[in-house]
Amino acid sequence: MICLEEKGLRNYNSKQLSFLNNEHKSEQVVDINPRGQLPAFKHDDTILNESLGICHYLEDTFPEKGTKLLPNEPKEKALALQRVYEALTLQRKWQQVFYYFVHNPVENIKQEVVTNNKKELLQELELWESYLQNHKGDFYLTGSKFTMADAVFFPQLAIIIRMHPKFNNAFPIMADYYDRLSPRKSIQDTWPPHWREVDGQDIFDEKFDPRDFDVTRFFG
Amino acid sequence: MICLEEKGLRNYNSKQLSFLNNEHKSEQVVDINPRGQLPAFKHDDTILNESLGICHYLEDTFPEKGTKLLPNEPKEKALALQRVYEALTLQRKWQQVFYYFVHNPVENIKQEVVTNNKKELLQELELWESYLQNHKGDFYLTGSKFTMADAVFFPQLAIIIRMHPKFNNAFPIMADYYDRLSPRKSIQDTWPPHWREVDGQDIFDEKFDPRDFDVTRFFG
Repeated sequence: MICLEEKGLRNYNSKQLSFLNNEHKSEQVVDINPRGQLPAFKHDDTILNESLGICHYLEDTFPEKGTKLLPNEPKEKALALQRVYEALTLQRKWQQVFYYFVHNPVENIKQEVVTNNKKELLQELELWESYLQNHKGDFYLTGSKFTMADAVFFPQLAIIIRMHPKFNNAFPIMADYYDRLSPRKSIQDTWPPHWREVDGQDIFDEKFDPRDFDVTRFFG
Repeated sequence: MICLEEKGLRNYNSKQLSFLNNEHKSEQVVDINPRGQLPAFKHDDTILNESLGICHYLEDTFPEKGTKLLPNEPKEKALALQRVYEALTLQRKWQQVFYYFVHNPVENIKQEVVTNNKKELLQELELWESYLQNHKGDFYLTGSKFTMADAVFFPQLAIIIRMHPKFNNAFPIMADYYDRLSPRKSIQDTWPPHWREVDGQDIFDEKFDPRDFDVTRFFG
């Protein structure tokens, strides 16, 4: 959705769905995406259901519109691509923390698994902090221009901060990046409406008790 | 590696590493890829460590060389991209089956988890069988030309067939695709040398006993 906004493609139809109400398994979605997953994306008679595929498709199909999402210069482009795909690893690491609580009944939660999942995410975040450190002085993730890498990385960072609000103590450069990017129009316009209504939950707090885990703080 | 070969970039240095000997954590790799993971790829002073990022980079940097990995026609290109990224889901599903045996001591293996993991992979494969069914008459995954989608899909299929050699009974169209693509030069030239020396292992056989699981049949 950030890429759609960046490309200035404002005339799209979108529908907010509730995971908790299983709306991603509705016929309307399954007609487009047989796995019953999101995103489900259709442009004319072209269907794409993979977020990174959609980002590439939008850039390729509308190269002249709005923000250029991949630089022309090969080295800059390579760096942007590297960060785009690396963000999948970051995604896997926060999902490992988060879905452990979602998928396991509280009596099966093992503290050592929780600790290890968090440790792996924090190690991964150290890497991203170092990437931004190397680009200090640059406004965006890989340089002076917003790219697909920012569009893909920012939402991962946003959900991590939602589950770890004291994040800025450990990762000041990323926290600064987050504050810088948050007001951007494409990001504000695609902010999950539900996130404006309820706060996140600090699952990184020492005193966090898995019995209190509340998935509705993250998605509706 | 298939993309490198398809682009006709034969002058690259590559080094075969042993996962079992932890060579992916060696200094030589970590210098390029701080996570100590493969691939670790360097071209001039550009570093890319994500396989899909590398595929895009090769196509973008050498558009005129060798095989064109993404079609120009937007609809064909979108379909190729969709399948490229969907192959990550297929990868996750076979990894779920496979790594359950790798990461768990035999006494912790639960038959219902094994059964469910296999079921999920088989469901995913049904989807791919239907994709190929829709393209019956076409030689490649998304049409009459080899694309990045084949380069990304084929290795997933090859490892699945290695763990499920009776695959062709359930998925004849994919099995036919596999036979058609296997002799291709780029695929033969990048075939894991170790796979020529030892057979796979039928972990889908009803009589398969987790105590017999032998990771060395899959990687060295």
